[in-house]
Amino acid sequence: MMTKEEYIESLRRRPKRVFVLGEAVENFVDHPVIRPSINACAMTYELSHLAEHEDLLTVTSSLTGRKINRFTHLHQSRDDLVRKVKMQRLLGQKTGCCFQRCVGMDGFNAVDTVTYEMDQELGTEYHQRFRAYLSQVQEQDLVVDGAMTDPKGNRRLKPSEQADPDLFVRIVERRPDGIVVRGAKVHQTGAINSHEILVMPTLSMREADKDYALCFAVPADASGIFYVYGRQSCDTRKLEESLLDTGNVQFGGQEAVIVFDNVFVPWERVFMAGEYRFSGSLVERFAGYHRQSYGGCKVGVGDVLIGAAQAVARYQGLEKVPHIREKIIDMVHLNETLYACGIACSAEGRPTGSGTYLIDLLLANVCKLNVTRFPYEIARLAQEIAGGLLVTMPSEKDFKHPEAGPYLNKYLKGVDTYCIDCRQKVLRLIENLTLGAGAVGYLTESMHGAGSPQTQRVMLSRLANLEDKEQLAKDIACVEKELTCPEVEG
Amino acid sequence: MMTKEEYIESLRRRPKRVFVLGEAVENFVDHPVIRPSINACAMTYELSHLAEHEDLLTVTSSLTGRKINRFTHLHQSRDDLVRKVKMQRLLGQKTGCCFQRCVGMDGFNAVDTVTYEMDQELGTEYHQRFRAYLSQVQEQDLVVDGAMTDPKGNRRLKPSEQADPDLFVRIVERRPDGIVVRGAKVHQTGAINSHEILVMPTLSMREADKDYALCFAVPADASGIFYVYGRQSCDTRKLEESLLDTGNVQFGGQEAVIVFDNVFVPWERVFMAGEYRFSGSLVERFAGYHRQSYGGCKVGVGDVLIGAAQAVARYQGLEKVPHIREKIIDMVHLNETLYACGIACSAEGRPTGSGTYLIDLLLANVCKLNVTRFPYEIARLAQEIAGGLLVTMPSEKDFKHPEAGPYLNKYLKGVDTYCIDCRQKVLRLIENLTLGAGAVGYLTESMHGAGSPQTQRVMLSRLANLEDKEQLAKDIACVEKELTCPEVEG
Amino acid sequence: MMTKEEYIESLRRRPKRVFVLGEAVENFVDHPVIRPSINACAMTYELSHLAEHEDLLTVTSSLTGRKINRFTHLHQSRDDLVRKVKMQRLLGQKTGCCFQRCVGMDGFNAVDTVTYEMDQELGTEYHQRFRAYLSQVQEQDLVVDGAMTDPKGNRRLKPSEQADPDLFVRIVERRPDGIVVRGAKVHQTGAINSHEILVMPTLSMREADKDYALCFAVPADASGIFYVYGRQSCDTRKLEESLLDTGNVQFGGQEAVIVFDNVFVPWERVFMAGEYRFSGSLVERFAGYHRQSYGGCKVGVGDVLIGAAQAVARYQGLEKVPHIREKIIDMVHLNETLYACGIACSAEGRPTGSGTYLIDLLLANVCKLNVTRFPYEIARLAQEIAGGLLVTMPSEKDFKHPEAGPYLNKYLKGVDTYCIDCRQKVLRLIENLTLGAGAVGYLTESMHGAGSPQTQRVMLSRLANLEDKEQLAKDIACVEKELTCPEVEG
Amino acid sequence: MMTKEEYIESLRRRPKRVFVLGEAVENFVDHPVIRPSINACAMTYELSHLAEHEDLLTVTSSLTGRKINRFTHLHQSRDDLVRKVKMQRLLGQKTGCCFQRCVGMDGFNAVDTVTYEMDQELGTEYHQRFRAYLSQVQEQDLVVDGAMTDPKGNRRLKPSEQADPDLFVRIVERRPDGIVVRGAKVHQTGAINSHEILVMPTLSMREADKDYALCFAVPADASGIFYVYGRQSCDTRKLEESLLDTGNVQFGGQEAVIVFDNVFVPWERVFMAGEYRFSGSLVERFAGYHRQSYGGCKVGVGDVLIGAAQAVARYQGLEKVPHIREKIIDMVHLNETLYACGIACSAEGRPTGSGTYLIDLLLANVCKLNVTRFPYEIARLAQEIAGGLLVTMPSEKDFKHPEAGPYLNKYLKGVDTYCIDCRQKVLRLIENLTLGAGAVGYLTESMHGAGSPQTQRVMLSRLANLEDKEQLAKDIACVEKELTCPEVEG
Repeated sequence: MMTKEEYIESLRRRPKRVFVLGEAVENFVDHPVIRPSINACAMTYELSHLAEHEDLLTVTSSLTGRKINRFTHLHQSRDDLVRKVKMQRLLGQKTGCCFQRCVGMDGFNAVDTVTYEMDQELGTEYHQRFRAYLSQVQEQDLVVDGAMTDPKGNRRLKPSEQADPDLFVRIVERRPDGIVVRGAKVHQTGAINSHEILVMPTLSMREADKDYALCFAVPADASGIFYVYGRQSCDTRKLEESLLDTGNVQFGGQEAVIVFDNVFVPWERVFMAGEYRFSGSLVERFAGYHRQSYGGCKVGVGDVLIGAAQAVARYQGLEKVPHIREKIIDMVHLNETLYACGIACSAEGRPTGSGTYLIDLLLANVCKLNVTRFPYEIARLAQEIAGGLLVTMPSEKDFKHPEAGPYLNKYLKGVDTYCIDCRQKVLRLIENLTLGAGAVGYLTESMHGAGSPQTQRVMLSRLANLEDKEQLAKDIACVEKELTCPEVEG
Repeated sequence: MMTKEEYIESLRRRPKRVFVLGEAVENFVDHPVIRPSINACAMTYELSHLAEHEDLLTVTSSLTGRKINRFTHLHQSRDDLVRKVKMQRLLGQKTGCCFQRCVGMDGFNAVDTVTYEMDQELGTEYHQRFRAYLSQVQEQDLVVDGAMTDPKGNRRLKPSEQADPDLFVRIVERRPDGIVVRGAKVHQTGAINSHEILVMPTLSMREADKDYALCFAVPADASGIFYVYGRQSCDTRKLEESLLDTGNVQFGGQEAVIVFDNVFVPWERVFMAGEYRFSGSLVERFAGYHRQSYGGCKVGVGDVLIGAAQAVARYQGLEKVPHIREKIIDMVHLNETLYACGIACSAEGRPTGSGTYLIDLLLANVCKLNVTRFPYEIARLAQEIAGGLLVTMPSEKDFKHPEAGPYLNKYLKGVDTYCIDCRQKVLRLIENLTLGAGAVGYLTESMHGAGSPQTQRVMLSRLANLEDKEQLAKDIACVEKELTCPEVEG
Repeated sequence: MMTKEEYIESLRRRPKRVFVLGEAVENFVDHPVIRPSINACAMTYELSHLAEHEDLLTVTSSLTGRKINRFTHLHQSRDDLVRKVKMQRLLGQKTGCCFQRCVGMDGFNAVDTVTYEMDQELGTEYHQRFRAYLSQVQEQDLVVDGAMTDPKGNRRLKPSEQADPDLFVRIVERRPDGIVVRGAKVHQTGAINSHEILVMPTLSMREADKDYALCFAVPADASGIFYVYGRQSCDTRKLEESLLDTGNVQFGGQEAVIVFDNVFVPWERVFMAGEYRFSGSLVERFAGYHRQSYGGCKVGVGDVLIGAAQAVARYQGLEKVPHIREKIIDMVHLNETLYACGIACSAEGRPTGSGTYLIDLLLANVCKLNVTRFPYEIARLAQEIAGGLLVTMPSEKDFKHPEAGPYLNKYLKGVDTYCIDCRQKVLRLIENLTLGAGAVGYLTESMHGAGSPQTQRVMLSRLANLEDKEQLAKDIACVEKELTCPEVEG
Repeated sequence: MMTKEEYIESLRRRPKRVFVLGEAVENFVDHPVIRPSINACAMTYELSHLAEHEDLLTVTSSLTGRKINRFTHLHQSRDDLVRKVKMQRLLGQKTGCCFQRCVGMDGFNAVDTVTYEMDQELGTEYHQRFRAYLSQVQEQDLVVDGAMTDPKGNRRLKPSEQADPDLFVRIVERRPDGIVVRGAKVHQTGAINSHEILVMPTLSMREADKDYALCFAVPADASGIFYVYGRQSCDTRKLEESLLDTGNVQFGGQEAVIVFDNVFVPWERVFMAGEYRFSGSLVERFAGYHRQSYGGCKVGVGDVLIGAAQAVARYQGLEKVPHIREKIIDMVHLNETLYACGIACSAEGRPTGSGTYLIDLLLANVCKLNVTRFPYEIARLAQEIAGGLLVTMPSEKDFKHPEAGPYLNKYLKGVDTYCIDCRQKVLRLIENLTLGAGAVGYLTESMHGAGSPQTQRVMLSRLANLEDKEQLAKDIACVEKELTCPEVEG
């Protein structure tokens, strides 16, 4: 398993074509806008070497029997599924942001279970190919971007109906040694910090769209691939020379557009190429695992935000006021409800044909649907506790200005026994998580990551088993005969 | 294990002093207001003999090694805790109401863990006494009322400060062979349907209140005990000769006041008698187990209500209308969130000193706090789907009246292919669960059973570990030094 | 203007064919199930003779120049619209239930404005007919049931498509002297307590359904009309000899089915007969006025429920506990938000062609949509404050039983300085309003009365002026050119 | 009345000492971070010269009889109060942000009514002084900052108890010709764009704090005053050369710290100086008027956000999808509920002793309390409709980059008939309002401006008249005698 430092070095050894804020970047590893997201991902390496977190961060590989980072693992039990969620909560707590390595993990498990079923049914060899590939990932302890979301263009149209056929990633050429693909993936969390890209389809495809029913892996620095960094709220504060105004100066999330401009993929890295009937399963399972994930990572970030709210209440002399205490309880209640959903869908997991455990899909979708709401309310409560200074506080440079600074330090002090910069720092952290770069991950990504809310609702509708529930009601209400006439019953 | 029929007979053999609607009742077993609640409790016996539910309803006793009804079991594993919740959901589904046997089960597990700790610390013999008692309960497959809530009088005053010292159950005499107790327990779910009463304290007591720090078991028909049946919304519909208007003609909940008028309890049935320091633990654990329970039973009733809403939508031709579908999804989402909390606090359970497993208390309180809200919203949505006829439909007798009936049958028909009485029955079931006798259990009991919401909030506040969360925030915000002055730091 | 007593006598003089709980009732005025609803309606007469309420309850008729009860008035100003809402809040406060006379008032104003427009456009004489009719209503100070809701059968089908053509009220014969109508109206609030029935269509009709585009007035005791009383939760408690257990022993709501079995209506009482293009306006305006009404009456009932919650908190010694105070504030906040909506749609009213003022329709729909939610939450909070005794308290007869009574009076006392029956009475009032007969009006009628929530949402969608809002956004975002290609722009 | 251009020139003529992002700024008028907020305030001048908005933006002065800008007016009727709210909604629609001029208007009306009462009771001359001052403001058409919020330090301590006595603005010297004041005001909306500062106390003061019971006006460029600009989310995007990435390139809000470093105020500009008993009224009324204001301005911004969501749905081909439509309806519903509260508290206004109209305080507090919640939910829904691209879209410079740009323009197109930059611009506007600089005003200021939510709740508690509500409940429940014993009744 790599150390944090080895991971960062490994990125340097794989130079990529990256655009940030309108410029092509030579050394993305040290770019001040990107580096915090690398640090966040690096935490998945750092903690894996600490004895106290060994049970969560490491595990024995089911493929090689060797100790690996859990982020590269195929879940072999309910306990594995539960530990995954706890690991994610821990990392959310340590970074206060999205640490980006989950998409790969969730992709591995989804691809593993679906390729097994494809091979069983179609006689293909995708599953062994994939396991061979994954063994390498485990051995090298790689970060893999699980890339699902296509740009989609006009949402009313299927892939092949779009004005531009490339709006979903597709096979443009099938060759004896592999395929050539073209398209783009958007909202790619941590893509630039990855060693590999694992591409999956974004929708359940139909026959007409079979060239879009596509799953493969490529090195993140493969020829024809480039990246454009997504803007985030307050992204350029990272370019200022201020420790304080950033809120979270060490860590951050990352979203990028990946362009695949006629990229060649050899067959041994292709895991689906036209088997459109399995595309829906793959989407559903990846989404399911990733919806489970949010019951861990966002809860960890929620812990940070609750802690920040409690701290700032203290700095302002308000921590014992009943209504403040009630709001903290509300935040805890909402956050732990999310966690409960994350744990429950894991504890109710079941083995699939390949032996890999799948979460309970109904509960995983319930989990994510709550994640699309509760962090917003937690953020609102944090803003309520923080007070207006959250958005009216002058910059760190003002506090340090020879003329203005002394006045600001005089007037913007809370309880006098606390250092003024504690309050400033914690307010900036709350700003970061509710309005700034952190809010991208904590709020908007909670909404749309792993599928927008309506996709979870559609799944709930499919999995809710309404016929059974109707029968329960009819049994209790003593409804024996429902239909009027025999001819209708036929 | 008793059959349903044996259970009902066993109640006849233990005549009790029972008042219902102002009358002393001779044969409470066949009283039309009471019988549905006996039927509900009897379902815990009926299902225990069905092969398909054996894994949920039965278990091997940790005390005797024999097969017992899970309602008398001490949970020996996380899996036991999870199965408990699933059993409760199943029973809620089959009865559409409170089936009343959980309070005893939750009492057993709480008393078991606390008496073990008392004996360890104080050298008492309560734990072995309790286990001897419980072995009998298991062997005889008894229903035990877990009786906690005292009348409380003026809520601002402690037990010994009340104008009347009997407002909390207390020891009025200590004798060589046992104790004499006086007082009352209110909101006693299923008390009249029980074979035994297991009394527990209702609060964490202080030294001044040590005569109230009291736990014991008595036969439900012991001398000096009598019961007054609590009124419920629409209770007297059960006295009408109408199958239809009751909504749930077979099953119902039951709440009673139990009066203990100088009742003698021999020492072998006394499990706490003055050890006030342990009263808080006992309350907290019973409440914890019972808050878990609500993540099962109320979810089962929720399933019935969702099914009823879906059925009535169909009878009215509305089941495919988008906004109706979305409301059904909302109901499912809320209901499964409750279930997720019930499962999560079970899956995160841990063994106590006595070997009996305790749920995760934080998550169990989160579970219950959600239960105090979501069923109300599910009920509101069910009323929205049902339409106004829910509360304006004439009585069954009107539908059968020779003059009015034909007109009602003509005009109050929904989709013509469905029998009109299906719609009537299902609307009455929704009325039952949202306004009638069933609403007592599904709504108000969800609010106050296992402790009113504020008690859960107090627990969340205690268990939330805010210091740790603050530290997470300070680490990320780079707060190194919090206090201004050295003298304060000391 | 009639006195309360004259009103009650006037009902006796118009015997109706009424079925209640399966029996044809001779003297409906003194029937214990019906009488409370007559009392509630009678309050509209009683208050009109009290000097302190004269400004709200009475007004100078725009038709006759004489002093009339505001319930028969055509609103002549914004001030009239505002006073209407205040009058309704007052009556809700005095009765704690639906007082039933609003449907007529709202019908008058709707029919007045629409018949004016019909006459202007079609050269018909409906408006003068209607005004002549209304003058009589004002002079005689009558209660008129505004009857809109048809049974509707299969909701997917139009009136003329139903299996039974009578599922919407229709013209079955046109004669020189009038029309013969057949059908039924359901959910008819206060119908049996009315002197007259004003029938309106329930939907916007199309040409194929023009025989259903129908508006007329008939005496409530006209030949061919009969009534079936709707069951309500806890309706039969009114038959028990208990003052206390009813919760609201004096007042109550009423819902009935009216059957029109070939009823003859002379032309001078016909206000629409086939002019289907105006049916939509009539529905929309009646609904609009009635949605405004709910911003008054339900707020008044809310005041009663808030007061009951505050009283019971006091009886239990909890009125100063912070979380109880916060819940009372939540209830007040929700209730006053409803009131604000009622006032706002009135204060923004505008004159129609006939001179009668119409509320702001957008805001009236906003008002009602909030009414479909907030009373449920107010009721939930009231139950939280009330405690479990709300649903477990024995009957009044038990409290008076020679054996059980003394114990109940001992044990079910709250703060000892308050009489025990205060607590009982107020708890029963809360039960009445949240689970019992009062909940029918306060909750389910708040949901479905004046149209189910989705009908308000459809209106919001139509009235929201989204194009204007889009333009505002585009102006600020500097979107100058939206479309790509000239050919599309054409 | 000044034109927009004259206003901007007038600011240049009053140079102020301003710090922005750590630098003392010479020409604040043209500073790119500040200028959008000047533009927003200038809109209050621009619209006052447009005939179509004359009825809202202008009014005849009650002091001079001349036509003035309504922002300098004393409200003389309910209609004035209603028009104020409509004017604010209009300005919110035109700027999409806080336009900053309301604080002065709300201050004028509060000071006017309270000084009248002070003079009546104390025989002081504050009211005529104030009216003389206000006449000048009206004649010169000035922007006045209504400055209320002090830094407050330790929230548990009163002004005179703080470690630093200057944490609330106070009189440090009383001289024959005036007073010298010291302290600071924080969260000062639009302060730098103002001509004058009207200082008011922030709390109800007690005798010990009478030097803090202080109200006065000073020119915004008076000696001893300086300003520090508050940071906002994404503030530095205004420094980038990008039209598009700012979201709202023309307009923005402004919050500043004002420091009063021994500022002299002549007596004719002092309106309270020690009369601590009136400080509470002044706070309550200013807050009341300002809470009303939010029922206008935030609704206007809400209109912009709803329009943006609708536009982006269209650009993505989703505007007819049922769940999207329902979300738009939810947004409209919430927004119009806020408006209803703004209108209602205005329509229920009443004249004070000075003739100036005061809003209904209960309803104004209800209004603001809803404003602390609904914009957050509207923002959440807007993010849901917008999709993830909201936070992952590359910068404008990337879209224009010669290499990356063509790919981004290819892949990030929605429905192909719409220009790609429409979608970009509207997404950036939604980002601005939900995460960026606009969110400061639309969300956090909605929370804390005009007082944090708990201050509204305290007012609701005071104004709710719970005794009357209790009496209503007791009348209906037939509670005649509440107390047990005669001695208690005495």
